[in-house]
Amino acid sequence: MEGVDHLALERSKTQFDVDQMKVVWAGSRHALDVSDRIGRLVASDPVFKKDNRAMLSRKDLFKDTLRKAAHVWKRINELKLTEEEASRLRFFIDQPSYMDLHWGMFIPVIKGSGTEEQQKKWLPIAYKMQIIGCYAQTELGHGSNVQGLETTATFDPKTDEFVINSPTLTSSKWWPGGLGKVSTHAVVFARLITDGQDHGVNGFIVQLRSLDDHLPLPGVTVGDIGMKFGSGAYNSMDNGVLRFDHVRIPRDQMLMRVSQVTREGKVVLSNVPRQLLYGTMVFVRQTIVADASSALSRAVCIATRYSAVRRQFGSNDSGVETQVIDYKTQQSRLFPLLASAYAFRFVGEWLKWLYTDVTQKLQANDFSTLPEAHACTAGLKSLTTSATADAIEECRKLCGGHGYLSSSGLPELFAVYIPACTYEGDNIVLLLQVARFLMKTVSQLPSGKKPVGTTSYMGRAEQLLQSRSNVQKAEDWLKPSVILEAFEARAMRMSVACAKDLSKFANPEEGFAELSPNLVDAAVAHCQLIVVSKFIEKLQQDIPGKGVKEQLQILCNVYALFLVHKHLGDFLSTGSITAKQASLANDQLRSLYSQVRPNAIALVDAFNYTDHYLSSILGRYDGNVYAKLYEEAWKDPLNDTVVPEGYREYIQPLLKQQLRNARL
Amino acid sequence: MEGVDHLALERSKTQFDVDQMKVVWAGSRHALDVSDRIGRLVASDPVFKKDNRAMLSRKDLFKDTLRKAAHVWKRINELKLTEEEASRLRFFIDQPSYMDLHWGMFIPVIKGSGTEEQQKKWLPIAYKMQIIGCYAQTELGHGSNVQGLETTATFDPKTDEFVINSPTLTSSKWWPGGLGKVSTHAVVFARLITDGQDHGVNGFIVQLRSLDDHLPLPGVTVGDIGMKFGSGAYNSMDNGVLRFDHVRIPRDQMLMRVSQVTREGKVVLSNVPRQLLYGTMVFVRQTIVADASSALSRAVCIATRYSAVRRQFGSNDSGVETQVIDYKTQQSRLFPLLASAYAFRFVGEWLKWLYTDVTQKLQANDFSTLPEAHACTAGLKSLTTSATADAIEECRKLCGGHGYLSSSGLPELFAVYIPACTYEGDNIVLLLQVARFLMKTVSQLPSGKKPVGTTSYMGRAEQLLQSRSNVQKAEDWLKPSVILEAFEARAMRMSVACAKDLSKFANPEEGFAELSPNLVDAAVAHCQLIVVSKFIEKLQQDIPGKGVKEQLQILCNVYALFLVHKHLGDFLSTGSITAKQASLANDQLRSLYSQVRPNAIALVDAFNYTDHYLSSILGRYDGNVYAKLYEEAWKDPLNDTVVPEGYREYIQPLLKQQLRNARL
Repeated sequence: MEGVDHLALERSKTQFDVDQMKVVWAGSRHALDVSDRIGRLVASDPVFKKDNRAMLSRKDLFKDTLRKAAHVWKRINELKLTEEEASRLRFFIDQPSYMDLHWGMFIPVIKGSGTEEQQKKWLPIAYKMQIIGCYAQTELGHGSNVQGLETTATFDPKTDEFVINSPTLTSSKWWPGGLGKVSTHAVVFARLITDGQDHGVNGFIVQLRSLDDHLPLPGVTVGDIGMKFGSGAYNSMDNGVLRFDHVRIPRDQMLMRVSQVTREGKVVLSNVPRQLLYGTMVFVRQTIVADASSALSRAVCIATRYSAVRRQFGSNDSGVETQVIDYKTQQSRLFPLLASAYAFRFVGEWLKWLYTDVTQKLQANDFSTLPEAHACTAGLKSLTTSATADAIEECRKLCGGHGYLSSSGLPELFAVYIPACTYEGDNIVLLLQVARFLMKTVSQLPSGKKPVGTTSYMGRAEQLLQSRSNVQKAEDWLKPSVILEAFEARAMRMSVACAKDLSKFANPEEGFAELSPNLVDAAVAHCQLIVVSKFIEKLQQDIPGKGVKEQLQILCNVYALFLVHKHLGDFLSTGSITAKQASLANDQLRSLYSQVRPNAIALVDAFNYTDHYLSSILGRYDGNVYAKLYEEAWKDPLNDTVVPEGYREYIQPLLKQQLRNARL
Repeated sequence: MEGVDHLALERSKTQFDVDQMKVVWAGSRHALDVSDRIGRLVASDPVFKKDNRAMLSRKDLFKDTLRKAAHVWKRINELKLTEEEASRLRFFIDQPSYMDLHWGMFIPVIKGSGTEEQQKKWLPIAYKMQIIGCYAQTELGHGSNVQGLETTATFDPKTDEFVINSPTLTSSKWWPGGLGKVSTHAVVFARLITDGQDHGVNGFIVQLRSLDDHLPLPGVTVGDIGMKFGSGAYNSMDNGVLRFDHVRIPRDQMLMRVSQVTREGKVVLSNVPRQLLYGTMVFVRQTIVADASSALSRAVCIATRYSAVRRQFGSNDSGVETQVIDYKTQQSRLFPLLASAYAFRFVGEWLKWLYTDVTQKLQANDFSTLPEAHACTAGLKSLTTSATADAIEECRKLCGGHGYLSSSGLPELFAVYIPACTYEGDNIVLLLQVARFLMKTVSQLPSGKKPVGTTSYMGRAEQLLQSRSNVQKAEDWLKPSVILEAFEARAMRMSVACAKDLSKFANPEEGFAELSPNLVDAAVAHCQLIVVSKFIEKLQQDIPGKGVKEQLQILCNVYALFLVHKHLGDFLSTGSITAKQASLANDQLRSLYSQVRPNAIALVDAFNYTDHYLSSILGRYDGNVYAKLYEEAWKDPLNDTVVPEGYREYIQPLLKQQLRNARL
């Protein structure tokens, strides 16, 4: 069977240019070439093998990760990879390690918050990995509320040093990736105390381990926090616990780009605007949205291919059972996720642009669009990660029983993905920030202040509060203007309703707390509008390739109409559409599913994932699922022996009725 | 800190008699006593320790399971436990093993489908566990569609034997629990073939392994199918793969209660009605619904307790941060799940009654209510297991970052629970069965046929299609009649709308396929109505204990109004309620949350779970979370050494820039 493409018939039905769609997905021909080349490189290197990961013990998995991380670094240097190539290489390795935090947090925070002098001192050795760093913010008792951190950094003017200390159990640093067993250094966030005064939380570069023998330095207690969700997954990472017992560091190891401590212990602000730090946040969140589309597309690719392989009930003329992908119940759950993968890809692409735009404005000391950019990235981070986490599990369910096998790849993908809903801002906390911004925007409308960027639709409040959708037949729902208006009206009306309800409270903070569930709903409506509108904007661009734009058009409509169905209560209760129009939307959605169907396999082929990266027997490119599942089963350690270990002690005495005398 | 109750203040606020609530939850004072006694017995026995389960390798975990299973059996015999006590003992062990299938499937199927003679031969040795059996139905390529199974049992009149064979790869038995490494026997489902004719799927008792040395018998290939979702969890079970190469068994090993094969190879039906087999199905599903309330209540108990321990942002007068449970966003996600746990408990209790009722009617040859009972149990199995799977993950998210730690207990609970959505009927397939029954019921209304049981509301179709909810103020939503009417109107109208849409199709089966997503929605609406109405019925009973009934009343309203909010699109699009009434429901819901708040901890204490059973540091009864998390971390194997294994090979060369020469 080797070499046979079980999905060839599916692929022959494709109505668009898959290669051009690959370019669209990758972002450019160049990006596709790089991704394709590096993907194959990783797949062909035996060190990067990962299909046995779920079976490894914690220790073996961790050692395997250390080996891979070192090999990655070796290959990057040997092959003199560009930054883009190196980043794709890390992506395809697909195994969390201390490297992620060293490159993704430690270096960026020094770049963003360190003075030029500090950057000169620390960055070169960090770039060469002569030191390995992590980002130590979260504490055992303190997560989202950074201002509640308890670790202290007390300035000692006698020695010109800071004394880093963990005064309580709950002040133990807890969670930082790479901290537990590997990092030699950390940026530690602690309350700056000078002259008995608390100046709030600042970052400090602290060496944790000796560069000679890797032992923790005096006063430093450090270890791993233990197993996490799933097998494999994030257990490759040494998330750590860290306590300080009056550890001293020189004054110049406080990150001083924004506020500085003088030799005398005075805290002074530099002339660098604090807002500059937000640039990093926008950058990080843009990465998270891009990761969401990767994880989601991966799950969708697996579920789509297996849905075409798997057959159940019914029968066609030849007497074979019906492909599961032909069932409307399957389509109505799967295709919206396929559409979401593309939607998140494009909104991620747009966020890249937004980051450039924000950076340029910051450099020109223009902070006017920052609050909007901040709210928008917070909301999109929350929306895309929550949707992706749910979607991975939905894809697993769409694979039936076999999705529960580790070899389906979906259990580990879920386990490794879900922390994205919590890190870099808990998703509910972020939505409340969005809601706060929306309420501010609404409250400023009467003053004539023009909302900018993704909130500019709110400038048309009067119209949107009055408008009635003029959908009269199902096909009307295909018009971008119709979709946009419905989403804008819904978002606008939910925000305005919240604002009205808030105004009834004497104490606005009390009102905000009391109404927070409604505010979260309003924030979600706003964020979904952003995703839909960016998808529509993407389609206004020139997109070459036979049938490519048409397919994206279909997916865009699937995404939007699926949301209308899912959040029908919002659309109807705000009067943005009528029940009749909702029913027409549903009819249209069903007919769109039929249009997606023949192209489904090609649409996931366009992600251009190697079988190595997918790491899923159900998602194999060639669809040769059953033979490979069967083959894989025998590799389980339990099958090392025909009679299991423990037979003599625990099974035989039971069968022979001799259990009473057995020692258990 | 040992011995301090960190939740004492919370417990002091309780407004009801917790002990009486424990009785309500357990079902009776007797059931509570048994459960309490056995729970403590298990918790105090070192063999049943399970807090290190996530760290065990597959082999060690499996051996641990064999040990526990043997110990369970030993204790049951030593202590001469009653059937009820033994069942609680297995419940509290909380580790899937071959025992579950031996007692839960192998024995029941022989009881249900074996002749009296067969029962006499097989049951005594099965009861004594001189043989261990499993239930081998599902195949690699065939799950829900039992009629599509490929394994054959061909009658050979020459030898008076059946020849059991696996003709294809996809006919390999795949998934049966207990099959992989332990079972000596199986009930194998195979196509009965006599004289070249296929008589469809029947069950056959087949010995798989030698009772002397446990080796597979000639012609039998058997093994484990490999790792499944998560660490610990269902990896304690040897789900198996099984192939037959023309294995011969005597004719009397076909289960012949309903159809029989004569010595001449003729297939004859016995006088036992086939419907009797449905009794078992109702029984199994009732168990699954009861399990759902157990798993859900366990997750809710963990999330509720930790939400009271955890503090974040804000501050009260003493300067401490606000308890997370005081946030409305937390309440609006958590309390509906708490209410669902109670709702599922009571509907499970009612299903127990239904099973008795069905059994009595079957014995009296009255099959009239069987289709309704079948649809109802199918729907409730689907509804409660899907909701529980989602709720466990939601509870994990409600615990913030720490919910991701294995020691929170939630990752493993999720991993071990989710198969319930697939086994004993895929949840979507089951909902389509419900929908089919609903469509039939609607189509028979004009003929005057009176709908029975849970569909009896459909007898008032005319009224329900016309009615308008008369809610005028938020408190109106507290009336059971108001809630029932809204849910009945919604369910009725969705079913009727589907029936209307279906009638437009020339081919009804085509229509059913095309409209299946809508049909699923209608089935869900019907099933939610059942749960709500059974909760309301429960409250019409006499429930003693100070404040107990009042608390349940609140939870019942929370459950119903939460569903109104979640499925608002249904209620509005069917015109069952107005947007204004929906908004009042929301107001009422918020106020109900405030009433649940002071009793939340006591409401989860009423589940009476031991810390051993919960197996969660976040859910500890005493709330001493942070000290224990810290303590637990150091037990991870990675912390066996300060410098990790692999340092010399993979970290040192990197730091020292000597990677180029390193062998990786």
